[in-house]
Amino acid sequence: MALRTREQYLATLSAMRPNIHKFGELIRDVTTHPATRRVVESHARAFDAASDPRLAEIYTTVSSFTGERIFRFNSLMASLSDTIGNMKLKRASYRRTGTCSGGTCVGWNAANVLWAITHEVDKEYGTSYQERLKAWLLHAEANGLVVAGALTDAKGDRSLKASQQPDPDCNLRVVEVKKDGIVVRGAKVMIAGAAASDEIFVVPGTAYGRDEKYYSVAFVVPRDVEGLTIVEARRASDGRELEEGFDIPETGITQGYLFFENVFVPNERVFLFGEYQYTGKFIQYFTANYRACIGACVAGQGDVMIGAAMLMARANGLPVKTFQNKLVEMAVNNEATYSAGAGALALGRQHPAGVWVADSLAAHTNKVLVATLPYQTKRICQDICGGIAETGCFPSHKDFTSPATGRLVRKYLKAGQKVSAEARARAARLVEWLTLGAGVPGTMHGGGSPDGAKLVVRMETAFEEYAGYAAQIAGIAEPVPEPERNK
Amino acid sequence: MALRTREQYLATLSAMRPNIHKFGELIRDVTTHPATRRVVESHARAFDAASDPRLAEIYTTVSSFTGERIFRFNSLMASLSDTIGNMKLKRASYRRTGTCSGGTCVGWNAANVLWAITHEVDKEYGTSYQERLKAWLLHAEANGLVVAGALTDAKGDRSLKASQQPDPDCNLRVVEVKKDGIVVRGAKVMIAGAAASDEIFVVPGTAYGRDEKYYSVAFVVPRDVEGLTIVEARRASDGRELEEGFDIPETGITQGYLFFENVFVPNERVFLFGEYQYTGKFIQYFTANYRACIGACVAGQGDVMIGAAMLMARANGLPVKTFQNKLVEMAVNNEATYSAGAGALALGRQHPAGVWVADSLAAHTNKVLVATLPYQTKRICQDICGGIAETGCFPSHKDFTSPATGRLVRKYLKAGQKVSAEARARAARLVEWLTLGAGVPGTMHGGGSPDGAKLVVRMETAFEEYAGYAAQIAGIAEPVPEPERNK
Amino acid sequence: MALRTREQYLATLSAMRPNIHKFGELIRDVTTHPATRRVVESHARAFDAASDPRLAEIYTTVSSFTGERIFRFNSLMASLSDTIGNMKLKRASYRRTGTCSGGTCVGWNAANVLWAITHEVDKEYGTSYQERLKAWLLHAEANGLVVAGALTDAKGDRSLKASQQPDPDCNLRVVEVKKDGIVVRGAKVMIAGAAASDEIFVVPGTAYGRDEKYYSVAFVVPRDVEGLTIVEARRASDGRELEEGFDIPETGITQGYLFFENVFVPNERVFLFGEYQYTGKFIQYFTANYRACIGACVAGQGDVMIGAAMLMARANGLPVKTFQNKLVEMAVNNEATYSAGAGALALGRQHPAGVWVADSLAAHTNKVLVATLPYQTKRICQDICGGIAETGCFPSHKDFTSPATGRLVRKYLKAGQKVSAEARARAARLVEWLTLGAGVPGTMHGGGSPDGAKLVVRMETAFEEYAGYAAQIAGIAEPVPEPERNK
Amino acid sequence: MALRTREQYLATLSAMRPNIHKFGELIRDVTTHPATRRVVESHARAFDAASDPRLAEIYTTVSSFTGERIFRFNSLMASLSDTIGNMKLKRASYRRTGTCSGGTCVGWNAANVLWAITHEVDKEYGTSYQERLKAWLLHAEANGLVVAGALTDAKGDRSLKASQQPDPDCNLRVVEVKKDGIVVRGAKVMIAGAAASDEIFVVPGTAYGRDEKYYSVAFVVPRDVEGLTIVEARRASDGRELEEGFDIPETGITQGYLFFENVFVPNERVFLFGEYQYTGKFIQYFTANYRACIGACVAGQGDVMIGAAMLMARANGLPVKTFQNKLVEMAVNNEATYSAGAGALALGRQHPAGVWVADSLAAHTNKVLVATLPYQTKRICQDICGGIAETGCFPSHKDFTSPATGRLVRKYLKAGQKVSAEARARAARLVEWLTLGAGVPGTMHGGGSPDGAKLVVRMETAFEEYAGYAAQIAGIAEPVPEPERNK
Repeated sequence: MALRTREQYLATLSAMRPNIHKFGELIRDVTTHPATRRVVESHARAFDAASDPRLAEIYTTVSSFTGERIFRFNSLMASLSDTIGNMKLKRASYRRTGTCSGGTCVGWNAANVLWAITHEVDKEYGTSYQERLKAWLLHAEANGLVVAGALTDAKGDRSLKASQQPDPDCNLRVVEVKKDGIVVRGAKVMIAGAAASDEIFVVPGTAYGRDEKYYSVAFVVPRDVEGLTIVEARRASDGRELEEGFDIPETGITQGYLFFENVFVPNERVFLFGEYQYTGKFIQYFTANYRACIGACVAGQGDVMIGAAMLMARANGLPVKTFQNKLVEMAVNNEATYSAGAGALALGRQHPAGVWVADSLAAHTNKVLVATLPYQTKRICQDICGGIAETGCFPSHKDFTSPATGRLVRKYLKAGQKVSAEARARAARLVEWLTLGAGVPGTMHGGGSPDGAKLVVRMETAFEEYAGYAAQIAGIAEPVPEPERNK
Repeated sequence: MALRTREQYLATLSAMRPNIHKFGELIRDVTTHPATRRVVESHARAFDAASDPRLAEIYTTVSSFTGERIFRFNSLMASLSDTIGNMKLKRASYRRTGTCSGGTCVGWNAANVLWAITHEVDKEYGTSYQERLKAWLLHAEANGLVVAGALTDAKGDRSLKASQQPDPDCNLRVVEVKKDGIVVRGAKVMIAGAAASDEIFVVPGTAYGRDEKYYSVAFVVPRDVEGLTIVEARRASDGRELEEGFDIPETGITQGYLFFENVFVPNERVFLFGEYQYTGKFIQYFTANYRACIGACVAGQGDVMIGAAMLMARANGLPVKTFQNKLVEMAVNNEATYSAGAGALALGRQHPAGVWVADSLAAHTNKVLVATLPYQTKRICQDICGGIAETGCFPSHKDFTSPATGRLVRKYLKAGQKVSAEARARAARLVEWLTLGAGVPGTMHGGGSPDGAKLVVRMETAFEEYAGYAAQIAGIAEPVPEPERNK
Repeated sequence: MALRTREQYLATLSAMRPNIHKFGELIRDVTTHPATRRVVESHARAFDAASDPRLAEIYTTVSSFTGERIFRFNSLMASLSDTIGNMKLKRASYRRTGTCSGGTCVGWNAANVLWAITHEVDKEYGTSYQERLKAWLLHAEANGLVVAGALTDAKGDRSLKASQQPDPDCNLRVVEVKKDGIVVRGAKVMIAGAAASDEIFVVPGTAYGRDEKYYSVAFVVPRDVEGLTIVEARRASDGRELEEGFDIPETGITQGYLFFENVFVPNERVFLFGEYQYTGKFIQYFTANYRACIGACVAGQGDVMIGAAMLMARANGLPVKTFQNKLVEMAVNNEATYSAGAGALALGRQHPAGVWVADSLAAHTNKVLVATLPYQTKRICQDICGGIAETGCFPSHKDFTSPATGRLVRKYLKAGQKVSAEARARAARLVEWLTLGAGVPGTMHGGGSPDGAKLVVRMETAFEEYAGYAAQIAGIAEPVPEPERNK
Repeated sequence: MALRTREQYLATLSAMRPNIHKFGELIRDVTTHPATRRVVESHARAFDAASDPRLAEIYTTVSSFTGERIFRFNSLMASLSDTIGNMKLKRASYRRTGTCSGGTCVGWNAANVLWAITHEVDKEYGTSYQERLKAWLLHAEANGLVVAGALTDAKGDRSLKASQQPDPDCNLRVVEVKKDGIVVRGAKVMIAGAAASDEIFVVPGTAYGRDEKYYSVAFVVPRDVEGLTIVEARRASDGRELEEGFDIPETGITQGYLFFENVFVPNERVFLFGEYQYTGKFIQYFTANYRACIGACVAGQGDVMIGAAMLMARANGLPVKTFQNKLVEMAVNNEATYSAGAGALALGRQHPAGVWVADSLAAHTNKVLVATLPYQTKRICQDICGGIAETGCFPSHKDFTSPATGRLVRKYLKAGQKVSAEARARAARLVEWLTLGAGVPGTMHGGGSPDGAKLVVRMETAFEEYAGYAAQIAGIAEPVPEPERNK
């Protein structure tokens, strides 16, 4: 079976029902509209890579179902090696696109985690969710599907649970149960890469309780399913995507708000419904794997920042060695999240269902690093690159090429003698995009907030055991209890 | 004498010769054009403040020449109290506009520093620069001028001195000397607030040497002087300024590229020309005062970040106390640069010419803090505010109000029960603007780079004296010299 | 009137009643006993400095009472310049001793702050505390007294107020009121420099309430007053002070536990008693000044760390420039606390009583810096110096000189060719002492804890005002209140 | 075959030839002398653990040679799981002893790495080093040997190579080749746990060159071999080990200076001699594994710091939850080095010889974390614990129990009501010992310096490749070369 090609991928996207809006406009063709063609290009590069001999090992693997070569982002990850393969793919994608390719990431993780969850649910309740999931996985493998994952709900009032919200739609829920399927309503927000995806994998956004069964649902739908309206978020400097010129790269990211208005999902695409007891475990597995692997994302973007800083130094007329210490500091930050992520995987275990689950404590520790170190890396990058790159502080492409001012802009933007004004401008815009523009992925809250991660660290750290070690080494024989009144 | 009013200020700007370009277009009226009206609004608020009883003490003072009440930003700063007054004005302006008002800052500092420099130059060379400067200062005071300051040259190849550049225009220079004035050519870049200014104070961008006399020049020109073309830099998310709606605040900043093409400057507006020996000292005084006072800028913007984080918490349905530790951490960062700046002033001294000069070592230390702490403050702000604010990840104002999608966007953006979706969106856009958008001032390289500041710290630290203290305390009687071969 | 000399100072100390214990032993003469002679030496160097022309301006000043030249540490500080003089003295002392000289610091600050407090109390209650204080100040000036300050109480259970403690002595209190004086009991702990002091200035350790009048007391006593027993704390590596050899420097610090067992204090030495309403204000003024000025202490020790790192580099055979970036980073840290401290003073004001009071918000911000930056500075120092200095990991002086092993130890400790093994060892021991030994002053909790400082920052930051600025810039017209249920 | 018991271990140590000196004294029996009995106790606890059912899996494994159960620290590590087993053992040991147990660490790593190196050398040169090593490993397994590892040479002038040193002994070298063995001279310094070891594994301390064959040597000797003199380093507060009382824990660490004066090593214990080409690779493998695994050491000590901080909070009368955020911050630091270490192992590979080698880039990144994060953890620990723990600032055990002062000391040291003064004192001493005393392991330079690690990061980062990614994303088609003159 031949792997899907870039051309096939683009053709499919073009043929989909238009249901994506941005800037008040309905986008007719995501592959050509300037607001979405960059995120499509980013994902298309994964198809290119699959047939590039230097990258094929990273982007493809062998199906555990069929033994055929498939895209890695459609595979079940059974081993440590498979999950490190996920990290390698992420780093490679960031290196080639500069930013997030959500359609080769979140749906993949969701399917893998549900493989474990459906195993447990089926075992307890005699359901046959895993069988449905397997059928869908075979379909995804066979067609090389790009699948966004939708976890985050609109949430409403952060101090209330889903079942307490004045507007019950704040979290996505089942509003009708039919014989052949379910009908869902609600919103999933900040969903990366939906515009470049064939399908959307929808999963619970939090751990639900007994009275929240109708929120406890997981399923997959085509991106253009009836009843689904998508509005893309606007982010810093994304207005440039609508312009001509080099003020923004040719790759990109989108983050959509997905509004489900009574969307019908046929039963064979429903992988959880009502088993609220497993939503917490789903979140646990999902975040463990996700927060381990995102160490590779920020590392990959950090690699590009290193490269961009080198270009800027040279464009400014300075040798790279001037900044060697700073570049190494950036590299240390990149490798720190990458290796801590790999460590979270290595400290994990194989689930009885056959998929690998990262260690939760280590993964959430990594999330804290991911929410911290890239800020330093960006700061160092801006430090090296000078004011022109720090805030992208130089005239627009229009002024660069304008008959009235272009001559002056180009004359004075030239710095290093062997580098053109345009190359310097492009490098500076890249740094701006990576550190203060539309290329910045949400490393703080993407994949969940660091405060949530710290909560997990708190729950999973054996504090009292540690107090015991300390008492033993200190030679304290008496009990050292909590003060009574403060309990 | 009555202080200039907002209306008078706007009328003057409107009447100027159009010479500012952005996005390939010549701006006819800076007070109404969307690309510049926000920076004008920011500066106009200083005029409002001067007549606000709660702020008048901050924004006005008494002229040491005439005894009349003038705008503080036109005054000579003779004492510690006067320079702390500069800091208070900066912090107040940031609090009211959210960002930099360069036209009430850099020209002011330039004039003050030149007051000291012209004193020294006149004394050595018998020139009468200070007299010229006094005449101009009286004019500025009397008219309540807003004066941008232009220091940074295009620079060209960073590894070469001005006199070595293949293109001699890379640093601004005198190209012709006439009986009644000089003719200058070159570029000054990233000049804050030029679009909101009446005049531009042009000063040397570095310390020049014997063969760089023609680069050693200081003068002031009207913003619309013949031969001056200004192209505004584009920065993250500034495209929104051209749109309707709340995706960007009503205040703002601009940073212009000023191209001087044989601009004539009459002698009475030239305050230094050829005395290259004093350019180094000019830079020293200028950066000392500037890098002390910018501690107030980042503190003021940090205050707004604190406030914005509080709004977001409440808009999300959470009480502020949830984030109390983080808010205090932000406040500590703000006060750190503010008090270190005040300390640099307090450790300074009065120059014989009567103006106050900050302590260089302390001021450059503060520059390092200013290039570091705001990054942390922004990170904490994003941490508190959630993903919607981190990267401004939600639909545009157009989608918020669109007939097709506005209903859905508004429904799902609402979170805290007592706060509207619009207020939440506005708060989130403010955070985006402050931390990842057009409101970010260049704290890394603005007012000079931290590496340059560290160089000053290195030059002004008495390292060998410290080695002596250590040897004495350690009881080392023998000399501990540098290894010979490594010298 | 001649200034007291080192010899006179030592003679007085020698003649005092022995009441200091360490290691289970009563110390007969603090000037010669190895456990105390180093702290005495540290203070004696202040007397030397007062007659050193290069340092006299730092260590002496003119009495505002008598017009005579006095030790600066006996003066009232009326102006910003006077308080910056305090900082300069602290930095100079640290540079010459490597550590804290509490006897020229805390009592001085206590007296100054009480000058303001007694002014207020006398005004409200018609007492004449300030007159008593003036008499004592004249005595201190005339005799060049070294005066420790005792603020921190034993405190007992940290979750209870003084009046709630099961053991009422946990905070020092008046247990009897006599006609001619008061009798006090309790403990003041971790009191720096008591062993080198003539007298002890005792002040309230916290803000007391209505039922804590007997705790609200300030007074001064001779160090050897009847009923006072002092036990010196042991700290890392202080055991070496009892040995011969260079494993520890000749200067030092002590921190005493002062046990008051019914100590009688005559009325003329009591400066507050019962006016509990002023204890909070005392703490506020005291900490403001103290936490501003300690920026100089850690800067001064940091200077010595820089010097020690330079010695180590050379002793290892490496030129200092190898570590230039790191040394500058250390210098930046030093100057940061120094200038932030000076800023807290500059932002302060003169109290109506005539003494200068630092700005509280800035001072407590500086305390946070002081609790943070020196840890980085020490880390960098250890980084530069190598394993031998990091943990002082090399044989003792006894082994260095032992007939059995000294030859080998010396042979292999030699590194840089122009530096002896002994000089290398001395430099390494200095680094150990500064960063991991008895020379480490308590920068975290000394002068109060950073958590307490953050509490002040929290109280003094105008949070709601900042939310207002943000709302105005964001264009939010509606109120954004706290969520109701969470109040 | 029964595993060696604590008693057997102690008996062997007692019977060894006395060759260890400290404080100018020759230590007769390391198991009873106060300067060494603590490090012996630390190692003895590993023997206890091996027979503790809860810990046996961590401390023992199965020999790949014999299939018998052996101490894990005598095993060959063939897999990722085996090397993670190394990390688990390290963390468990730190938790039970509070500090480093070098005798179950460095020799073990040395033997494993030499297993790979001898494989390569034998293959290239036809030597039979691995056979010798296998024989020794069987001996070590069978006898449950504790084996210190000695890598760091005295080094002399840091700017010169071994062959350039004026004193050729600065690096350990072969001074004579005999028929049946070699004779070595020189020093290995800062060798952890030698006093608790049966044997010492000596390996090259750096990569040697063609003219340094005689330095290129690896071998193992009994700790008491003829010609070997050991002088233990003194470190902060280790003088307390000679005293009675609780001022120092019952476990501990020693770091010895090993002086080899013509020590004879029989051929069967020589595993490398002259093959200088492999010394670089030895260092590479050795540091990769070592710097991966030390993430567990600092994590384990950090666990004890968390516990100690909890004890102190309670002893002060405060509930642990007061400090929950800080404790979580400490936990994050611990898990960061632990998971990054595990990641470095997971990214590694199996060497053809059958042992696992960590990824070098990730391992050296971890070394940078290990040289940084524990400093933060210690700072937070001191922050929580108060002044009494920060610098151990309270009277000694002698004063605590002294008839003259003990009553007062105990009365005022009591704080939390349910915790005795002694427990509070013991907890505070533990914190002091962990953060500012003899328990501080050299995390900065132990296992090599962070600067060295950064050099590896620099060498192993594909900088130019990253510049290529950046250029591609920025759309820069032209070459962006280094400036010519700066090459």
